[in-house]
Amino acid sequence: MVNVSIIGATGYAGAELLSILHRHPQVKLVHITSESHTGKQIPELYPHLRGLCDMTLESLADLETIGKESDFIFIALPHGHAMDVGLQLEDFPVKIIDLGADYRFGDTSIYEQWYKVVHKHPNANRVYGLAEIYRSQIKDAKIIGNAGCFTTASILGLAPLVKHHLVDVNSIIVDAASGVSGAGRGLKLGNHFPELYDNFKAYSVACHRHTPEIEQALTDLGGEKVVMNFTPHLLPMTRGILATCYATLRENVSDDMVDAVFLKMYGGEKFIRLLGRDAYPETKFVRGSNYCDIGWHIDERTRRVIILSAIDNLVKGAAGHAIQNFNIAAGFDEDTALDVVPMYP
Amino acid sequence: MVNVSIIGATGYAGAELLSILHRHPQVKLVHITSESHTGKQIPELYPHLRGLCDMTLESLADLETIGKESDFIFIALPHGHAMDVGLQLEDFPVKIIDLGADYRFGDTSIYEQWYKVVHKHPNANRVYGLAEIYRSQIKDAKIIGNAGCFTTASILGLAPLVKHHLVDVNSIIVDAASGVSGAGRGLKLGNHFPELYDNFKAYSVACHRHTPEIEQALTDLGGEKVVMNFTPHLLPMTRGILATCYATLRENVSDDMVDAVFLKMYGGEKFIRLLGRDAYPETKFVRGSNYCDIGWHIDERTRRVIILSAIDNLVKGAAGHAIQNFNIAAGFDEDTALDVVPMYP
Amino acid sequence: MVNVSIIGATGYAGAELLSILHRHPQVKLVHITSESHTGKQIPELYPHLRGLCDMTLESLADLETIGKESDFIFIALPHGHAMDVGLQLEDFPVKIIDLGADYRFGDTSIYEQWYKVVHKHPNANRVYGLAEIYRSQIKDAKIIGNAGCFTTASILGLAPLVKHHLVDVNSIIVDAASGVSGAGRGLKLGNHFPELYDNFKAYSVACHRHTPEIEQALTDLGGEKVVMNFTPHLLPMTRGILATCYATLRENVSDDMVDAVFLKMYGGEKFIRLLGRDAYPETKFVRGSNYCDIGWHIDERTRRVIILSAIDNLVKGAAGHAIQNFNIAAGFDEDTALDVVPMYP
Amino acid sequence: MVNVSIIGATGYAGAELLSILHRHPQVKLVHITSESHTGKQIPELYPHLRGLCDMTLESLADLETIGKESDFIFIALPHGHAMDVGLQLEDFPVKIIDLGADYRFGDTSIYEQWYKVVHKHPNANRVYGLAEIYRSQIKDAKIIGNAGCFTTASILGLAPLVKHHLVDVNSIIVDAASGVSGAGRGLKLGNHFPELYDNFKAYSVACHRHTPEIEQALTDLGGEKVVMNFTPHLLPMTRGILATCYATLRENVSDDMVDAVFLKMYGGEKFIRLLGRDAYPETKFVRGSNYCDIGWHIDERTRRVIILSAIDNLVKGAAGHAIQNFNIAAGFDEDTALDVVPMYP
Repeated sequence: MVNVSIIGATGYAGAELLSILHRHPQVKLVHITSESHTGKQIPELYPHLRGLCDMTLESLADLETIGKESDFIFIALPHGHAMDVGLQLEDFPVKIIDLGADYRFGDTSIYEQWYKVVHKHPNANRVYGLAEIYRSQIKDAKIIGNAGCFTTASILGLAPLVKHHLVDVNSIIVDAASGVSGAGRGLKLGNHFPELYDNFKAYSVACHRHTPEIEQALTDLGGEKVVMNFTPHLLPMTRGILATCYATLRENVSDDMVDAVFLKMYGGEKFIRLLGRDAYPETKFVRGSNYCDIGWHIDERTRRVIILSAIDNLVKGAAGHAIQNFNIAAGFDEDTALDVVPMYP
Repeated sequence: MVNVSIIGATGYAGAELLSILHRHPQVKLVHITSESHTGKQIPELYPHLRGLCDMTLESLADLETIGKESDFIFIALPHGHAMDVGLQLEDFPVKIIDLGADYRFGDTSIYEQWYKVVHKHPNANRVYGLAEIYRSQIKDAKIIGNAGCFTTASILGLAPLVKHHLVDVNSIIVDAASGVSGAGRGLKLGNHFPELYDNFKAYSVACHRHTPEIEQALTDLGGEKVVMNFTPHLLPMTRGILATCYATLRENVSDDMVDAVFLKMYGGEKFIRLLGRDAYPETKFVRGSNYCDIGWHIDERTRRVIILSAIDNLVKGAAGHAIQNFNIAAGFDEDTALDVVPMYP
Repeated sequence: MVNVSIIGATGYAGAELLSILHRHPQVKLVHITSESHTGKQIPELYPHLRGLCDMTLESLADLETIGKESDFIFIALPHGHAMDVGLQLEDFPVKIIDLGADYRFGDTSIYEQWYKVVHKHPNANRVYGLAEIYRSQIKDAKIIGNAGCFTTASILGLAPLVKHHLVDVNSIIVDAASGVSGAGRGLKLGNHFPELYDNFKAYSVACHRHTPEIEQALTDLGGEKVVMNFTPHLLPMTRGILATCYATLRENVSDDMVDAVFLKMYGGEKFIRLLGRDAYPETKFVRGSNYCDIGWHIDERTRRVIILSAIDNLVKGAAGHAIQNFNIAAGFDEDTALDVVPMYP
Repeated sequence: MVNVSIIGATGYAGAELLSILHRHPQVKLVHITSESHTGKQIPELYPHLRGLCDMTLESLADLETIGKESDFIFIALPHGHAMDVGLQLEDFPVKIIDLGADYRFGDTSIYEQWYKVVHKHPNANRVYGLAEIYRSQIKDAKIIGNAGCFTTASILGLAPLVKHHLVDVNSIIVDAASGVSGAGRGLKLGNHFPELYDNFKAYSVACHRHTPEIEQALTDLGGEKVVMNFTPHLLPMTRGILATCYATLRENVSDDMVDAVFLKMYGGEKFIRLLGRDAYPETKFVRGSNYCDIGWHIDERTRRVIILSAIDNLVKGAAGHAIQNFNIAAGFDEDTALDVVPMYP
């Protein structure tokens, strides 16, 4: 058994961690924290967990005790807070999986530029937590900066083509849409039910913080600097992300070459389901699961390839991916607790 | 390992059976049938099951082989068809769990009156498949007539009060609402997305076929003939039933007596979560799970008790309940494959 | 032209007033107020009104000027605030239409008991603003206490039967459901999109403040004291209320008698559409309009009549009804600005 | 008064025509047809129109009479059928507004290639019915081929930039999403409520028939052949289209030049609301209205301009636009019957 704690357990990602860890046979949950709800029991905040997780929320004031008693700590706090935790626990043997952005960037100046926060822990022993791409480094890192939701869908969709140099890296556009749970449990007018129902909009056009994260991974994969457009949209639904990715094929790239790189890169992956050329994923096909479903189309008229990539933003886009990374780091089967059938309809 | 088949595997209840049985450690699925999709593989119809259930659909033409090779058969056909199967397999050792209405009624004349079909198998060795109430008989019956969706929520909400004679059985009204998945996968204008979205309506007012089923169980429990009103509504959402049940308390019934009968009847039940007096369930608290959440309120002004009961119509209202009954009949732990965390948000 | 002001113009009811008054040919809007958004222009808060209503929000600090310059004032404030306005403007010739609860009750002690507020203006010259029932008094009152949303649907559904003594007034139950816009634009967790989407729940069971309002009107209509159950539910959609009303028929009441009282009472009403016996309204049939659609069913088994009544909660349930009352009081055709086709699908 | 008929009045676009024409003061509706519902009254199919449009549906068998008695005919039939009508009525003085694709293309070989139908009326006196661009020709044409839904949003978003040569026409990508009403009232599994709810998907990737329509208009406007990518998505909601359009700015194009061309082209348009640079439309801001709301952003990092354009697919994307064209052709104020406030929330 591995001792696990969650810092910031009351947001949607925290609740999803609780749900998934509940079915993990080798995990013992030792501490869960919330500053705004210290002392409450989980079912007061999430009645669906009544009888399943009745733990009491603690403060993270005594972080050292949490650090000492845990083998792994998941952090599900807003960005800017995890680095305090990481710094304070630097010399403890505990491993950290941060679901926020603090540890996602190799070059912290990029983080500082996009997130407008000074990074306090730039020399952390960390890895970008996108399991299918950085699996071997994830095994050994002290801190895993779990990949973002839009970024996971976008990078997984584009990675084979960029890695194998089949597309012009200056041509990349990702147009994506997410269910509202991605915006968290905090109240704001834009996510008030009547405002969003029967409504659709773009936001953070060309300035969303997932942009540099996608660029970092694709630049790393292809060896050429990627600068791209990413446009997020908000869907009138709860869960799911669909990323529609565009890139111009390089000359002489055949359709079969495109198919081949997807198969080569993902043929053995448990959580990536390749639907193939001209077959398209729907967010509901992966709802509640850790799958990323991918399909693609090659447009002969424009010579662009269009890749469709779907995930559940709270699972493969957050808590599920974090537990996949945890399984890698802890030496468990990668799909332990994650072998869930998508909920349909 | 127990050999299991599903007759009629391509409706929503059939797909839910496939999903749940996929995680059942003691089940081997041997045959799945569909007359309209014979020869197709499941993922062609349900892409969310790609990689999880790749079985090919057969015809039920050779029912005897299916009967011989199965220990249990689930039937998820429209009413009127299961009794043909039950009749044909009467002398086979296989046990049958029918998710339709054919085997729900002790008095088949009531079935014939409400369903406008002649019953061909009136003397079947059968039991009404409401696990929490008929558990002991379910163990031994040849055929289990799995309880309906609205009926499960309604009966479970009212059973303690009726059984212990705390309410006037002539005063019972159930006003309930269901997500659209309860109407199945067959196309009809009323369930066409634009017609139902941002819409709410009642249907089958005072003539819904779940009425006699509720009356049968409550009459059986309380020993007095129950004639009641049941009004179903259609919700612009996918999954979930909430039954709001009204009954007038008999004289001298105290609030504590009401609380006590719920605790007495359901205190040890795995799948019933009592929220208590003045606490109310929401359908999303049970979504995707086999739970029935129950809360109640006593109105001193009118001396009515109002019981709120919530289930997922495809799980506790269909496939999950069927597998709970199967577990009872097969001798497994009742929650095998059903220990699922509700999906929230 | 009539000079009209709106106090509290930034909630959903206020915005709906702006929308409807925009098409009123005999209204000049002179003042609109908001304390939290003083100085802003309407499109900053409601971009859908860009180019249609570009007025600037004032404070109500100088209420006397507003009172002097207005022939009519609509108040769309939370309960407890309109009575201050009414009191202060008591001696001004302006007429007031309050969309809140302050002026709905003839007996202010009932208001005080259910709303937990001391009433400061108990002797106001006021009328309950349910147009189809109190039309003649509405013409001449100084203050119109516009009927609530659930109450309008419920009372209109039950009024003919109670007025003509066809039902037992002790048997009345109203089970109703509303879209979320009825809860207003203020943020709260229960109306946060992910919490409510694909979800359904009851709330304020047996203690909702619309209960005494329904009881008051029905008692007044039938001459017998009505004490009833009212259970509101929250629908995962934006607009629309459906009230499902139950009452036991008195002895010797025939089906035709039931039909006749509906026709008698509503045959000449512009905004009530009688669907007839065994025909049921859907909320979407009235969406965006001032209609109340009514259908009913008589259950011979239980001798209960079940009435279904549908309105748009922001129109006939709030702003539309208020403008209907305004038209009556100002001497305009009752449907001026209200002759809108429901938006379907 | 102008005599108007509708051929194919029972789809969603037909019903929307009925709704809007109901409030048109200079229109007399003389014939409405439906082959599948001949003899029925409109409220049987659309109960929301009860009391507003009680006309009886005729067959179009006697088209000549309809042609003789009408000044204008709207056709809302699936593609391939309007050209039969147009041909048969070629020598009648009646004017035709076709909401389908038959008369949208100047070069009918493009129609034949994308729609897989032989065009029977290639030499018709017709104009492409996009009012803001072809207003002067619309005045005089015999047949108006009303613009498509996705195309209206896309072309209006891109037109100023293409017309004034500010963007590279080879760089254009439109990623758009529509509510389900755009798919019509015909039943199909993909639009069955449970399949689509809480779901999002792309479809017809790089092969949607609105592609050549967008290309035709943009080529015409800019004088350079446009070949572009268009990807439609289906939203889990009823009404509304948002088009997110990408194009690379030519060298030396300043931000002010971009702003200027929008203002120049649309400054005087009644139905186009320019939100300006860095302000983004939402579909709900235009719901139920004939508005097209447009905002844009210039990304300095990639030198792409991203234009967001929102319409109601059934109004500006179909019936409203058709009536706008009708008003132009009949000499009425362009916004007659179209001065509707968007319905929010």
